[in-house]
Amino acid sequence: MVATDNFQMPQGQAPFDLSAYLQERQNLVEAALDSAIPVIYPEKIYEAMRYSLLAGGKRLRPILCLATCEMAGGTIAMAMPTACALEMIHTMSLIHDDLPAMDNDDYRRGKLTNHKVYGEDVAILAGDGLLAYAFEFVAVNTRNVPAERVLQAIARLGRVVGAAGLVGGQVVDLESEGQADVSIETLNFIHNHKTAALLEACVVCGGILAGIPEADLQRLSRYAQNIGLAFQIVDDILDITATQEELGKTAGKDLQAQKATYPSIWGIEESQRQAQKLIQAAVAELNLFGEKARPLIAIAHFITSRTH
Amino acid sequence: MVATDNFQMPQGQAPFDLSAYLQERQNLVEAALDSAIPVIYPEKIYEAMRYSLLAGGKRLRPILCLATCEMAGGTIAMAMPTACALEMIHTMSLIHDDLPAMDNDDYRRGKLTNHKVYGEDVAILAGDGLLAYAFEFVAVNTRNVPAERVLQAIARLGRVVGAAGLVGGQVVDLESEGQADVSIETLNFIHNHKTAALLEACVVCGGILAGIPEADLQRLSRYAQNIGLAFQIVDDILDITATQEELGKTAGKDLQAQKATYPSIWGIEESQRQAQKLIQAAVAELNLFGEKARPLIAIAHFITSRTH
Repeated sequence: MVATDNFQMPQGQAPFDLSAYLQERQNLVEAALDSAIPVIYPEKIYEAMRYSLLAGGKRLRPILCLATCEMAGGTIAMAMPTACALEMIHTMSLIHDDLPAMDNDDYRRGKLTNHKVYGEDVAILAGDGLLAYAFEFVAVNTRNVPAERVLQAIARLGRVVGAAGLVGGQVVDLESEGQADVSIETLNFIHNHKTAALLEACVVCGGILAGIPEADLQRLSRYAQNIGLAFQIVDDILDITATQEELGKTAGKDLQAQKATYPSIWGIEESQRQAQKLIQAAVAELNLFGEKARPLIAIAHFITSRTH
Repeated sequence: MVATDNFQMPQGQAPFDLSAYLQERQNLVEAALDSAIPVIYPEKIYEAMRYSLLAGGKRLRPILCLATCEMAGGTIAMAMPTACALEMIHTMSLIHDDLPAMDNDDYRRGKLTNHKVYGEDVAILAGDGLLAYAFEFVAVNTRNVPAERVLQAIARLGRVVGAAGLVGGQVVDLESEGQADVSIETLNFIHNHKTAALLEACVVCGGILAGIPEADLQRLSRYAQNIGLAFQIVDDILDITATQEELGKTAGKDLQAQKATYPSIWGIEESQRQAQKLIQAAVAELNLFGEKARPLIAIAHFITSRTH
């Protein structure tokens, strides 16, 4: 499905063509990812890494990183290695989360999961390989950015994957599965760490690479936290309302697994209202960037309007 | 067992007390690792990371990093975060290699493996957490080293874990298992990538952080590649000759798994000769560092004389 602007822009301004914007950036990111990983001996591991990394998807995370860097006065080129690293990290977490020992998923983005194609051993190693390569890729390929900023971005990348980020969120998620009385605090912890933290890292790293002051990084953080939580709420709603074909993954899986979700606590309508409120709060954080914030504003609205 | 100098030092020089040296450095590394990872919510993941990271061992890898940095004119403090990161990376690779989907080991360093204690899901995540934290730890905690050098060290760390290092070696190792006709080239590839590459990264990162010229880094590389291969040959010999109690892990496992090893190709005596030759070649690379090279020379000899 193609995104359209379903929100009001200030009077007298031409509407922002988000759909064209996303497509253009997605092409740039695809090309960068494709050339990032060659296939050499031992071919199987590089193929397994490429299989999941190049399996499509909207590339929302790298696009957020590029868009924030540009909004904050930097360039696409400055942020591209970090944008690719963020997609490698995201892919690694999907490969490991899908493993039989974790969520035991057979399909992802409409394709067989990594371990179904390459075996569990290679899937674990492909995730490890992508994670390690993400850091190497940023350290080696980032140009025209002071080394201190690159180090700061690397520190953020490390934090967002580790026990303080994706890994911590997944541990609590696994512990909560099958429990009927998961609190809203636990649910928030899981989603903050599994979803919002990575989106936040995308946005904040874009700002870091462009060199904006700490106070503005804080605003970017709040923007990202809000859209991150909205993103997850919409995901939960779609898990109930969308079909498997639309999602490209097993639908209704949360219900089957007796997972606590926002709709299971708030109901679908209230969940939608909460997601809208979060998007409004997110957009308000970008006022100081004026006209330049249009892509990030449009992306925020896009997140709640998506249907898969 | 305690190390003793079983090699000749130049005339007129007091013997170098390697045993005391290693003990002192080991204590420093233990303390740094212990304080690197707190236990906070969600406790289970931090405990799982600490369980394997603080399970003892000689800490040879971080000690090599510290020793090289000092030899090359740097300080222990400059290299300590990277030394800790190298041990985190080593630990992560052990946790993942021990998984049922990989080598399926129940014991490591005389203790139950991580997944036997915490479950496969948490063990996978503990490895991921340690790997990600290694990079964050270096980026955040390295002091009094120019940022460019820290980035260079991070690039080395990333490379040594990924498909061009540990992960690539493990893939070929898994493919070779149960095959009767593994070539010496394949065996070399596996050990270069699973063992020697990490030791090389320890030594080279120490040199990078101290800021020595590229030509000298090349010498350090060759020193490390040689001791790395010798290390693996001795490991293979010990797998045959040592008892389970001495090794702290399942002995004779390579034979059971029909793994090709150096003794299976060369026999034990020739393997020992080859290991000695490698150590001599390693030591010759350190001539330019004079007196300051004594710890690294002693460590090289220690590697072939160890009995577990």
